[in-house]
Parts: sequence; C-alpha cells; structure tokens
Amino acid sequence: MITVAIIGFGNVGKHLYEAFSTLESCEVVAVFSRNQERFQSHTEIPVIRELDKLPEAAVTIIAVADDAIAEVSDTLPERNGLVVHTSGNTPMEAIATKHRRGVFYPLQSFSKRTVSFKEIPICLEAEHEDDYEVLTSLASQLSDRVFNIDSTTRAQLHLAAVFANNFVNHLYHVSETLLSKHELNFSLLQPLIFETAQRLSEMPPSEAQTGPAIRGDEKTIKKQLHLLEGTVFQSLYQQLTESIAQTHGKKL
Amino acid sequence: MITVAIIGFGNVGKHLYEAFSTLESCEVVAVFSRNQERFQSHTEIPVIRELDKLPEAAVTIIAVADDAIAEVSDTLPERNGLVVHTSGNTPMEAIATKHRRGVFYPLQSFSKRTVSFKEIPICLEAEHEDDYEVLTSLASQLSDRVFNIDSTTRAQLHLAAVFANNFVNHLYHVSETLLSKHELNFSLLQPLIFETAQRLSEMPPSEAQTGPAIRGDEKTIKKQLHLLEGTVFQSLYQQLTESIAQTHGKKL
Repeated sequence: MITVAIIGFGNVGKHLYEAFSTLESCEVVAVFSRNQERFQSHTEIPVIRELDKLPEAAVTIIAVADDAIAEVSDTLPERNGLVVHTSGNTPMEAIATKHRRGVFYPLQSFSKRTVSFKEIPICLEAEHEDDYEVLTSLASQLSDRVFNIDSTTRAQLHLAAVFANNFVNHLYHVSETLLSKHELNFSLLQPLIFETAQRLSEMPPSEAQTGPAIRGDEKTIKKQLHLLEGTVFQSLYQQLTESIAQTHGKKL
Repeated sequence: MITVAIIGFGNVGKHLYEAFSTLESCEVVAVFSRNQERFQSHTEIPVIRELDKLPEAAVTIIAVADDAIAEVSDTLPERNGLVVHTSGNTPMEAIATKHRRGVFYPLQSFSKRTVSFKEIPICLEAEHEDDYEVLTSLASQLSDRVFNIDSTTRAQLHLAAVFANNFVNHLYHVSETLLSKHELNFSLLQPLIFETAQRLSEMPPSEAQTGPAIRGDEKTIKKQLHLLEGTVFQSLYQQLTESIAQTHGKKL
C-alpha cells in the first residue's frame, strides 16, 4: 500500500485523485486545497485546509501552478515521505531542499474531460534511487508507460508538447475564426482534424505533410495570403508556409 | 441507379471508387488513369486508358491535381452527363465551359488509410439546379453531411482546412524533430495529440487554449525561446506565441 497526499485540486490534482482512488494498493490520505468550492460534490475526499496539518504520506504530490511550486514546497513542513511536483516545465530543484525531492509528470493536457491514465506517459525523476522505486511502483499502477526523464530532458519534452498541444490548438482556433466569418460551422473540420491526428499512429508527420507549401504551389499560397489580407493571421500563414518549405527543402 | 466515371486514381479517386463501389444504387462505369501500375491489384476495375473512350455517365468526377483540372476537362470530349471536380481550392469555373459543371468536394485528407465517408462533409456546387439534385442524391448515399457551398465559400473552407490540417501536421513534425534531437520517441506525444483533437467535440478551441502564451507566462516563453536558440523553429515559436496573445487580448 502506497499512501499519497495531494496538494492542489485543479485539473491535474483532481484527475490524479480520481485515478489513485480506483487503485487497490494506493490510499489518498489527504487532499489540500485553498479553494473549498471545488469539493462541494466530493464529500468523500479527506480535505485538509491547512498545509501544516497534512498527514504523512509515502508520496506528497504538489499539483499547483508552476510558479507556486517553490512557495508551496517551502511552506510545507519537512516530511518523512517524498515530495514531488507534476510540472513538465519546472526543474525538480524548484522544490525546497528540506524535502526528499522528485517529479511525477503525466504528459497530458487535463481539462474537465475524463482521461484514461493507462496510455499516458508518466515521466519520473527522483534525487534518491530508493525514492525512484517508490515513484515507479506508484506510476506503473496508473500507466503502462513510465519513464525516467531528468529535468533537462523533461523541459525539451514540454517544449515539444507546447507545439503539439498549445500551438496546434491555436491553429484550430484560427480555423474556427476564419470559418465563423463566413458563417461556417467549425464541426465541418472535425473529421479532417481527427484524421490528421490519428494518421500519426501509422505514419510519421514528416511523411504525412501535404498542402500548398510542401508542393511549392505558389499560386495557391498567393491566393490564400490574399484571402487573409487585413487579418491578424496573414503573417502566421506566411511564417508556417515558409517553415514547411524550409523543413522540406523547398524554395518558395 | 446513378452512373459514375472517375478520372484520376490518386488517393481521392481511389477512395471515391472504393466508396461508390459499395453502394447499391451507384455504378462506376469507368476509371481513367494514365498510371497503369496503380491498378495491378485491382483487376475488377473497368479501367480506360484514353480519355475520349470514357463511357457516358451521369456524373464524371475529375479527381486530379488542382492545376490539371482545366486541362483534363478541356481534353475530355463533351458529355451528356455532369462533369465535377473534387478540389477545395479550385473554382467550378476551372472546368471547361463545354461541360455541365459542378463540384464534389469531400472535406478530408486522403492517404492510403481507410476512411469512413459517413462523417465526411461533402460540399457540392452545380451550375444547374437539376444537376445539383443528381449530386445531392449521389453524395447523400456516401455521407450524412452534404452541403451546398459555392466556390467563394469553399475557398475559405479550404483555407481553414490548411490551418487545421497542413499547418497542424507541420507542428507535429516540429515536435517530432525537437524530440528526436534528444532521442525521445514521438509516440510520447500521441495521447496528448489525440486529447487535443478529441476535446474539440466538447469545447471550442478558444476555450481549450492553455499554455504559456495565454497565461502571459513570460518566464517560460523566454526559457523556451532559449531552448530553441539556433534552430529554424525559434521564430515560429515567437510568432505563434504572439498570435495566441494577440487573439486572446494578452500583452507580452
């Protein structure tokens, strides 16, 4: 049985709580959150309102905003167990030195939607080898994909995730904006969007690239730049087109 | 029974042939292709090698590269039936005036992967109302989502699709490149990529936006720009970050 305490009950903390609660050999001994409202429909959760009353646990997970990790770990009294954060973009060293430190980073974007942890890569780091064993044992109960990834590599992984998630979502948003100007519904693009994502399980994105930029189709590029005249998206189109051409060795 | 002739046997022509062949009230009377090799494993297909021998059909579908549509339709002798192209980015008027013209544009990116047409929006256009009826009758056998969309609107739709498909795929490619530099496998990002796409069925992309740019998290942005120093992707990161900030009314 591994005992877990969770600090923070935003999307990450909540999904972790729910996932751990289904495990037989794991017990969530407490959840700390300043925001009481979040617990209204979760009366079964052992909520703690003061950080210094957080009971001991084998693993204490700090699931708060990146820039609050240092302060929270500092405020948290010294513990017997391991203290980890869940951030892709924050070094393990952000956690106060008084703790036995580690990282438990599930590589997923959490919203209110239900997710299955089985497929989600969980990237672990720990200062001490025996702490790492505890983290592995916890993570492998949740997911089949558990990795040892240090802070430097994790930063690179998080950067790649910014392109594949944040930036990709922004391009969906651009599409939505362009369509809505012509009273076209964004749902028209959904089969295309799903196919673009799902195709990656069969071919790498470098092979899946299509469109005017990789064809070197200057006529279409000019026409589409013209359609974007006067919008904030024209220069984005230009830059992405150039980047595709450059990446695939085309001249435009 | 609607008879169909298909000119071109690339990804679009092939998928259309396969989809039409499963329909009871549709008959593909001929497929024209210059490329004989494509038919080696399809001996059942009624292949025509010369355009002027193409038998009559209610609908003749020109499924060739955008810039070949005009020439092919010009070479094709006058027909009794309707002549349509499948391009998102080409006006109906690209088809020679001697034909009864129309457009049959399935909004999907076709590769060798199997696709289900049921969900794919099929955007139709025709010069004459009775021709439009024929197209609707054909398209609704394939898909539940059939739309009347004129050439001007279709160009806007295609532009939005370039953002949601071509540009998104390029961002996947950027992620893959960044990961491979650190010997990290692209499959690490697949659950994140699927979630980013699938979430759209429950919330619009404008609401799903997360990441350093929308948070106005300058510290992370600086750090990530630094990680991209010396790569061709640094300016792309900058531009996308600015575009997110601008779109969501943030100052960076």
